[in-house]
Amino acid sequence: MTLTSPGPTLGVVGGGQLGRMLGEAAAPLGVEVVVSDPTPDAPAAPVVRDQLVGDFDDRETLRALAERSDYLTFEIELADPDMLEAVSEETGVPVHPEPATLRTIQDKLVQKERLQDAGIPVPEFRQVDSTEDLHAALDDLGTPAMLKAREGGYDGRGNVLVESREDAESAMDEIAGPAMVEAFVPFERELAVMGCKTEGETDTFPVTETIHEEEILRESVSPPRATDERIEAARDVAEDVLAEMEGRGVYGIELFDTGEAILLNEIAPRPHNSGHWTIEGCHTSQFEQHVRAVTGRPLGSTERRDPTVSVNILGDGEERREARLTGEEAVFERDRAHLHWYGKREVYPLRKTGHVTLTGDDGTDDLLASARNLRDGLTFK
Amino acid sequence: MTLTSPGPTLGVVGGGQLGRMLGEAAAPLGVEVVVSDPTPDAPAAPVVRDQLVGDFDDRETLRALAERSDYLTFEIELADPDMLEAVSEETGVPVHPEPATLRTIQDKLVQKERLQDAGIPVPEFRQVDSTEDLHAALDDLGTPAMLKAREGGYDGRGNVLVESREDAESAMDEIAGPAMVEAFVPFERELAVMGCKTEGETDTFPVTETIHEEEILRESVSPPRATDERIEAARDVAEDVLAEMEGRGVYGIELFDTGEAILLNEIAPRPHNSGHWTIEGCHTSQFEQHVRAVTGRPLGSTERRDPTVSVNILGDGEERREARLTGEEAVFERDRAHLHWYGKREVYPLRKTGHVTLTGDDGTDDLLASARNLRDGLTFK
Repeated sequence: MTLTSPGPTLGVVGGGQLGRMLGEAAAPLGVEVVVSDPTPDAPAAPVVRDQLVGDFDDRETLRALAERSDYLTFEIELADPDMLEAVSEETGVPVHPEPATLRTIQDKLVQKERLQDAGIPVPEFRQVDSTEDLHAALDDLGTPAMLKAREGGYDGRGNVLVESREDAESAMDEIAGPAMVEAFVPFERELAVMGCKTEGETDTFPVTETIHEEEILRESVSPPRATDERIEAARDVAEDVLAEMEGRGVYGIELFDTGEAILLNEIAPRPHNSGHWTIEGCHTSQFEQHVRAVTGRPLGSTERRDPTVSVNILGDGEERREARLTGEEAVFERDRAHLHWYGKREVYPLRKTGHVTLTGDDGTDDLLASARNLRDGLTFK
Repeated sequence: MTLTSPGPTLGVVGGGQLGRMLGEAAAPLGVEVVVSDPTPDAPAAPVVRDQLVGDFDDRETLRALAERSDYLTFEIELADPDMLEAVSEETGVPVHPEPATLRTIQDKLVQKERLQDAGIPVPEFRQVDSTEDLHAALDDLGTPAMLKAREGGYDGRGNVLVESREDAESAMDEIAGPAMVEAFVPFERELAVMGCKTEGETDTFPVTETIHEEEILRESVSPPRATDERIEAARDVAEDVLAEMEGRGVYGIELFDTGEAILLNEIAPRPHNSGHWTIEGCHTSQFEQHVRAVTGRPLGSTERRDPTVSVNILGDGEERREARLTGEEAVFERDRAHLHWYGKREVYPLRKTGHVTLTGDDGTDDLLASARNLRDGLTFK
């Protein structure tokens, strides 16, 4: 390994907040970042070497990205694994994690089948291609149940809670495509683990408690408000999941803790919202770790420095409008609070526009209450 | 205060490593950075919105920078205070810290006179415009003594140690311009304090021990290897110095500790090498603090998170050549070690090309020894 200037260039498919935070993390390591994104002047643009404008699955854009890069990765599941593979083969630029892993994960049904086959505990699920399928599945799994589009969902889009048998048809209409249904898991808490993999090295960040509302992550808390035994159990499952993943990078592993079992909910083959707290909370952030892994550098320490909470800043109001946030002065005034603004031009209801991280030595409950207070003072005009 | 996208733009005169680290720190706050620098593709370029290419004192460049900015600052003393003032007046874009402060600090003689008048303890000094002046001064101050160019020196350039009366003429020849001479201070250690100022708020980062060789900073250690009493004394002097500074921003305040007295060595009206350790070592880095102060945001916590050492990566060898560093794998492998690469294209002897920070709970001596080991494993091919 040798450090040069310019150093290696990391091409990232996607230039949203994850691309932006990858850019922030890469510079100190001497790694330059170029992103591709369909939205001109995407969130990552101001902090990376360059943005190429083009769809995630536009072959010409992807090829141009590869030609400027020494390594390719993606920060969004909408990346196209076939095209990534083809362009990688044509240009000789490696993609991490492997496109095959992305392909498996993109299809929630295939993802679950693969993990179940590997012995990972998952909620009961069924493939459903019609209302009749869904009715039959509900007979087995009971209600409520979670109907999920097999592909393309994120931040709650593509998920529909089916409260009763009567909702089946409207739920299928809403998904409007290939689907799967999962038994509703009566969890005590949700947990998440950021795993990381590179050649010959595997590690996990400390277990995080995640709090969702309307299927959207609102808050992350580490350590979780759970016994050591539950935390250990979550880490064990995460390690088993990670062993099944192929390719270098970080993985967001979302889990249900029923108090008795840890069940895998979902995997993301990229940095994940549940790991944003690691920027201030750990010696190495998930973003630096991803850059390290993808560019073949050794992994950094995943040790937690301090108890840490992060809370998302989500779009409020009812309509799409220019993003103008007020109330952030209190965040700047609070010791050990850190603002992360994603630079999105427009806000709409529940859109992730930033997050606030708070570290502290108070109990986690107090820390979470303080972070929520800061967040609740933030509003879009 | 309101956060928007794009947020406020900070125009920075100078795009070296300080501009680069300002860029890294600004993005999470929603602040965009544009730099101006005469070297195309300067170190800051890949991580900021844009670089304007032009001399630090080129009026057209400075005016173009102001027209794209909401605030102006500088990361290099070679900025021209008169021109900054003029452009600020023409465009209505404020400059922080005040150009008047830069003007005072740029001239080391004026700087010392001003501080001495304010009651700050400084080494004895004399103005010297000729070999005769220097001879007379040495009669008063004794030898060795430090001859300094009044303007333009940095990283040891512009400083000549005068060992004896016989060296006076050659020393004056080397400086080749207006100079001052200072009594040599037989210090026990050198200390530094990063001070920060904004409207109605003043704070200091924890005191740092600095280790120089050949007038160039090699290592920074916080907390210093000194008694609480010496550390307190250093902070007191730094606070007095800071009270004399006009304008928002961070200030590097370098001090001599003789064991009995704390004497002011030099001030830099900008982020400073002795504060690089704050990136990992404190809750707020000196770079974030500078961005906060200049853009009118409240200051962040200056509390130290862990004992921290940073060591500079300096150019080795004898000639100017392409920068190719080897041995950095050991830095990546070491838990809690952090590489900061400045992205400079070329290396020459003693050029600052990066730094390594190590945090830890071991004693400071052990931490410093470990950091030195990592640095000593780094060589340019």
